Amino acid sequence: MDEFATRLRSCAESTEYALAQWLAELGSDNRVPPRLLAAMQHGTLGGGKRLRPFLVGETADLFGVSREKSSSAALAVEAVHCYSLIHDDLPAMDDDDLRRGRPTVHKAYDEATAILAGDALLTHAFALLADERCHPDAGVRIGLVRELVLGSGAAGMVGGQMRDIEGETTRLDEDEISRMQAMKTGALIRASVRMGAVLGGASQTELLALTRFAEAAGRAFQLADDILDVTATTAVLGKATGKDAGQNKQTLVSRIGVAAAAEQLTRTVEEAIEALAPFGPEADTLRQTARFFAARES
Amino acid sequence: MDEFATRLRSCAESTEYALAQWLAELGSDNRVPPRLLAAMQHGTLGGGKRLRPFLVGETADLFGVSREKSSSAALAVEAVHCYSLIHDDLPAMDDDDLRRGRPTVHKAYDEATAILAGDALLTHAFALLADERCHPDAGVRIGLVRELVLGSGAAGMVGGQMRDIEGETTRLDEDEISRMQAMKTGALIRASVRMGAVLGGASQTELLALTRFAEAAGRAFQLADDILDVTATTAVLGKATGKDAGQNKQTLVSRIGVAAAAEQLTRTVEEAIEALAPFGPEADTLRQTARFFAARES
Repeated sequence: MDEFATRLRSCAESTEYALAQWLAELGSDNRVPPRLLAAMQHGTLGGGKRLRPFLVGETADLFGVSREKSSSAALAVEAVHCYSLIHDDLPAMDDDDLRRGRPTVHKAYDEATAILAGDALLTHAFALLADERCHPDAGVRIGLVRELVLGSGAAGMVGGQMRDIEGETTRLDEDEISRMQAMKTGALIRASVRMGAVLGGASQTELLALTRFAEAAGRAFQLADDILDVTATTAVLGKATGKDAGQNKQTLVSRIGVAAAAEQLTRTVEEAIEALAPFGPEADTLRQTARFFAARES
Repeated sequence: MDEFATRLRSCAESTEYALAQWLAELGSDNRVPPRLLAAMQHGTLGGGKRLRPFLVGETADLFGVSREKSSSAALAVEAVHCYSLIHDDLPAMDDDDLRRGRPTVHKAYDEATAILAGDALLTHAFALLADERCHPDAGVRIGLVRELVLGSGAAGMVGGQMRDIEGETTRLDEDEISRMQAMKTGALIRASVRMGAVLGGASQTELLALTRFAEAAGRAFQLADDILDVTATTAVLGKATGKDAGQNKQTLVSRIGVAAAAEQLTRTVEEAIEALAPFGPEADTLRQTARFFAARES
């Protein structure tokens, strides 16, 4: 296994462990209903590539921040990502039965429990950032809260999901699809990188370069996702494929075709790498991450 | 109209205005989908007694904090309360069609939009607390985030809603019902008072007294609510009544009867007032609030 793959796997393992610890700590308060906790665990544990925690950790690492010190921020982003999957999978939204090869939360439990488990994960993500263990400086913690809201709120992830659902009944043009995707998946990827930068005390110039990197990496991620939905199988992906067409979801692939999307993907990865020009070899892992986003098979 | 009623109405009016301003500001970001914004507005504006913002403002006022300076915290609590109503009204939860005399958000829009509007309100509530306009000291803002999570998370409001739903199929004893209600409605009322105290820089003794007050006031509020569900009419309440029995919801009224519940209500109000013994006449409005919780007719 090459070094990049090792780093990625190691982050996935430590994130899994830290999420499990975090939820166990939450559950040690006996007011937390066991069924709610179990649903939160079902929706967060048991796999996932943990790409967002990886981006937080690798970006913070650029500035010499240890994995231990970026761990709370990384967990908060992953908790928000997992809550969004739980809610997006609901019958009223994308209506998915399968996620990471297992029943989705509302299938394993029920809809009410899934809604509440998502609500609780979102709420407690902010507690992770407010805790002193996240960062000794309250000002930095507040900065992280702001980035997470920007990435996950009405002008970010939640707004993007709304536009995506609206797109099932209205035809979007190429630009509108790009804007929707920049919000739906791009904004939280952007937040992950920026939270790493905030933890590292990045300068304005560094923050700008990293933001450009993150935006291009996010576009690459989504392009690859849309291409995979057309080309991969359910067995490889661990979730239903071909769903975009089935749900009349509009993607760049549905608008410009797989070949043109693949070309755009290559250019977008180059853009992400160019954005990192102000950084030396210490940013090589981020560069590889952009390439990985494009080349992943699941 | 007596002075208390004037204060309460004035708070309701300024909260309505501030919520409208806040959402308009959010919506001025053209990335926010208009449908999402409209659903957030539908779920927050147009009435409501705004008791939680009132508690934040009156508690902060004890310490000489102006309404203007407690406004962001008050709005954050109300945004969380409104998100919880939107999600609780969903078909998978309490399945209510009517709220404040108007269609619930999933009736006026659709389920997906209601889920997302709730998610967005919860997310942006934390942005209100993270903003410098909330309080100049980042440490205080972090303290407010913590209180809001405690009140609304898995060991608070969301956990209480989970227990309430579980209670539809399992018989709870009187203590279990009290614990469930302390989480479902009590925790956010407690958070409202404590957030006012945090803004005011309350001492540990003061915080403890106010917490005892808030816990008793919360119990009184819920007892009155359960009694009203049995005795009031839909026209007065603006939402369906008699629903508790219809949904097999367990309340103290269903366990001990209206008369015993009313007696307990009187004792609980006294408890709330006693808890405020360390404070002088400056806490009279809080004392009247506890009485109002018991005497309200809707």
